[in-house]
Parts: sequence; structure tokens; C-alpha cells
Amino acid sequence: MFITGASGFIGRRVTHSLTARGFDVRCASRRPPLGSTSSRWYQLDLADHASVRRLLEEIRPSHLLHLAWETGRNYYSTPDNVRWLIDSLNLIDAFIRIGGRRFVGAGTSAEYDLSVAEDLKETTTPLRPNGIYAACKKALWDVVSRHAAQAGVGHAWGRIFFCYGPEEDPQRPVATLVRALLRDETVPFQEGQGIRDYVYVDDVAEGFIALTASDFNGVVNLGSGEGVSLREFAQRIATEVGRPEALDFGALPTPSYEPRRVVADVTRARIELGWSAHRALGDGIRDTVRWWRDQTATVRTR
Amino acid sequence: MFITGASGFIGRRVTHSLTARGFDVRCASRRPPLGSTSSRWYQLDLADHASVRRLLEEIRPSHLLHLAWETGRNYYSTPDNVRWLIDSLNLIDAFIRIGGRRFVGAGTSAEYDLSVAEDLKETTTPLRPNGIYAACKKALWDVVSRHAAQAGVGHAWGRIFFCYGPEEDPQRPVATLVRALLRDETVPFQEGQGIRDYVYVDDVAEGFIALTASDFNGVVNLGSGEGVSLREFAQRIATEVGRPEALDFGALPTPSYEPRRVVADVTRARIELGWSAHRALGDGIRDTVRWWRDQTATVRTR
Repeated sequence: MFITGASGFIGRRVTHSLTARGFDVRCASRRPPLGSTSSRWYQLDLADHASVRRLLEEIRPSHLLHLAWETGRNYYSTPDNVRWLIDSLNLIDAFIRIGGRRFVGAGTSAEYDLSVAEDLKETTTPLRPNGIYAACKKALWDVVSRHAAQAGVGHAWGRIFFCYGPEEDPQRPVATLVRALLRDETVPFQEGQGIRDYVYVDDVAEGFIALTASDFNGVVNLGSGEGVSLREFAQRIATEVGRPEALDFGALPTPSYEPRRVVADVTRARIELGWSAHRALGDGIRDTVRWWRDQTATVRTR
Repeated sequence: MFITGASGFIGRRVTHSLTARGFDVRCASRRPPLGSTSSRWYQLDLADHASVRRLLEEIRPSHLLHLAWETGRNYYSTPDNVRWLIDSLNLIDAFIRIGGRRFVGAGTSAEYDLSVAEDLKETTTPLRPNGIYAACKKALWDVVSRHAAQAGVGHAWGRIFFCYGPEEDPQRPVATLVRALLRDETVPFQEGQGIRDYVYVDDVAEGFIALTASDFNGVVNLGSGEGVSLREFAQRIATEVGRPEALDFGALPTPSYEPRRVVADVTRARIELGWSAHRALGDGIRDTVRWWRDQTATVRTR
């Protein structure tokens, strides 16, 4: 089992969980992973195509779980997404050519046509990626799913919805919000009428483990199946922080591309993988706030 | 102006034509191009990403016409299409990053949903690429059209229909048919009820020149707009060869994936580019057969 992005938000949890269960996990990332001393870790730059091919030739993993991708502040619009697509195609092509048995990759809810009002369903909702991030993710799946199918290699794609939890990149929206609330500031926010499917990061990690272990070929939504407004989500965080009056709703404009509703139909995940997200929103928010509070306290007492 | 695939079936004509008109044409191909001594030619392996980036940095072309792609016998299904996609993304990304002004690429009618019975139209016919070749072509356009749009770079995509003419790769279907007929064999053929849009290679080359010169951003069909059955097309070739009885229709099975009808709607090309295919089928077939006959004669008298 070979995991890229193993030190990332979702990847570190997948790695930790699989290693704890005794799997032979080989991890690749640009930085060493946190808290997984018993897995074998390789420092690997996916942009170095020859090294990627050499390493796969050497390890010859049966399974590839590819979680690495752009995570910077402008991940949604940066042209670097094209480089990630190139490097991902090279990785997966190399994996198929060395005789790999199953590939699992990370997609996004933004691959769907988000003007659709109903729950987003893998088999029927049209795809219309908005922006270069989602376009590159969709292109990757379009190509590698055929490539793998032709080669008789298992292939699955988990479309991640609004994943949140402790240890997130501090620049991502939820982390930014929690940190601002913990700094005793008044926090400007948009009106927040849009409905989103927030899913706890440990649940998403378990979803990817289930996808990797199964022999289902195709796309599966990794969401909670529950919609909550951005406004309610933010308000619950503020309340958990103990500052229920701190949010200034409407102080920020609603981005023009903001979809009204993004909620997963999770039937397929339940039926095909026996997986569903089980962390309640209140519990997830409590643990997230607690983790950031601990971080802040640690910094303050240092 | 930088042209890849400049020694190919379409590329050599584009290169020749533009050079004759006095453009500063820089060509790249794995082999030297035929009959274009006044253009600057670079031997370049697109799989060598660093060299591609270095060359573009050095030349800094304003226009990129990317025609290079897999042309082997199994071009439709080979997993090497994924390598071509990777190398094409690298090329175009490098072109955009050095400040290129306009990119033009070669797509295929096979990007469309070919179960559609009407003429295939850029703006309304759904896309459903059948096979890895078409999937890679479509993925390339999906990604680079957004990348270019975001960077303010012109971008156009010519979807080629059933291109035929002299100097084709001898292993491609039309060339194979002509050569078999010239060898005095009885030639097994399928029933050939499927309707196809055959377009003469010089017309396609002029279409790409028009696309490169225009400032239209988007997809344009490069077809004749006329449908003819495979059977009639083959029969006209046999008649031109002087062996009207040589084809054994029905001796080969019809491939299961054969679409019934693939004909371009050519309205957009006419309106946006002022281009349309003008070579009549009879003239195109005559010139194609004549060229292969000359080749065969040359070989025989050597």
C-alpha cells in the first residue's frame, strides 16, 4: 500500500489508522508525516517523474492511495493545478505499468454542476467543474479510470465534500474562522445562506480506507449527507468558542461563484462500502475548536 | 509561431503553407519535416519536459500549434495516449508561462457522444469520449482551455473528422485500403453502413491555419459537413483504382463500437473562421490513389 500526501490533513489520519491496523504502509510526502513511526516513509517530489517511476519499480505496491495535491491559499484557482495533474498522471501511469492492482484517488464535490438544487449523486448529477482545480481533478479521473479499466486495474474516486477538523492548514477557511474567533476579534463574515455538506476529517479518512479495501470501481461521494448553512456552521463555532456575538454576518460580500447548495447523496457509499460519516456536527466542531485552543494556549505559554 | 508534429500528415502541410506565405515558422518534430527547407526546425522529444521548457524560453513563440500526438497502429486504445496527454500539458503550460499569446490544438470527432443521430455541433452535442484516445484529447482541452482563459491566452481546438489524403501513415485505414487495392488482392471489408464525414487533409491543414490566425476562442469542427457511407467511400476508391469488383463487403465483422453516423455541423467554422472544406470527394480520392500508385510504381522500378 503506497500513500501520497501522507503528511496531509486527511493523509496523516489514513496512514496512522492503517499502520495501527498492521498494514504494510509505504508513505510518500514532501515532509515527514506526524505520528506514524511504524510506517515506511519516502521523501518524494512527485514532479520528479523519473524518481517516481524508480521508486514504484522498487516498492511495487499493490495499492495506491493518491491524496497529494495543491493545498495552498489559492488552491482553487492556481495554474499549479495543471502541474499537479501532470504529476498525478505520471504517478498513476507508473503504478499501472508496474502491475499495481488498485488505485484510489481524491476528487471533489466541485466536479459536479453545483447549480443543481438536489443532493449530488454520482450516477445522475451532471458534471461541470467550476475552476481549474475541479477541472484538473475531473480530467485526472476521466483519464485514469479508463486507463485502469483497460489494464484490468481496480479504480475508485472519493469526491470529498466540505472536510473540516483539527490539524487543518491554518489558511483554509474553517481554520481561519476558528483562529480569528480565538483571537477575540469581531469576525466579518458573508451572509452565509449557502447550504454545505460538512464532513469530519476522521470520517473522510475512514471513507478512503473503505474505498481502498473494497473492490468497487467508480466514484463515491465522501460527504455527511447533511446540509447546514454556512451561517449556522459559523455560528455554532462561535458559540463553541464562547463568543456567540462575535460574527458580523453580511460584512463580507457573497462571492459571485458561491453555489446555493452543495450536499452529497450518500446512498452509494453506504451500499457499496458500508461507510457513512458518523461524527455529529456538534462533536466535530467541539474537537476542532478544542484543538485550535490547545495550539493557541501552547504558543502563549511557550 | 511554433508547430509540433510538423513532419506529420497534417503538420507538414501547415508548415509548408505558412512558410511559403512568409511566416516565421519554428517546427518541432522527432523527424525532420518533408519539403520545408526555409522553416527553422528543432528536433525535440516532448517527453523531455525540461528540454521543452528550455526551448520555449529560448524561442518565446507568440503562437503554438500543437499537432503532435500518437499515430501508431493502436493509437485509439494504447495507454501511451496518457503519456501524450502528460507531455502536451507540460508543453502548453510552458507556453502559457513564457507569455505565449495563442494556443491551437487538435481534437477529434470521437470526443462527441457518437450515439447522437444529428450532425455534431460544438455548442450543443454532448461529449462522451469513447476510448482512451478521445478521453485524453478531451481532458487536454478541458484543462488547457481554462488555464489559457485564466491567463488571458487565446485558445482554440479543431476537432478533426475523418481526415484522408496522400502521404498518410501506411497503417491507417484509408491508406491500408488503397494499398491493398493496388496490390491486386480481393479486399475483405465490413458491411460499411456507417456514415462518416471524410475531409481532405489539405482542407484540414487550411482549417488549422485559419484557427491559428483568428482570435476566436473555443472549439471548431474541422469536417466537410457531408456524410458518406464507409461502403460508398471504399467503393469509390476501388473504382478509382480501376478494380470496382475487388471489395468483399461483409467479409469483415462490423466492430461493436462502430457509431452509425459521424458528421460535422460546419456552421461555426464558416461563420467564425470563414473556412470550409472545398475539395470534392472525387478529387480527393483521385489524388490519394494517384499518390499511392506513384509510390508503388517508384518502389517497383527501383
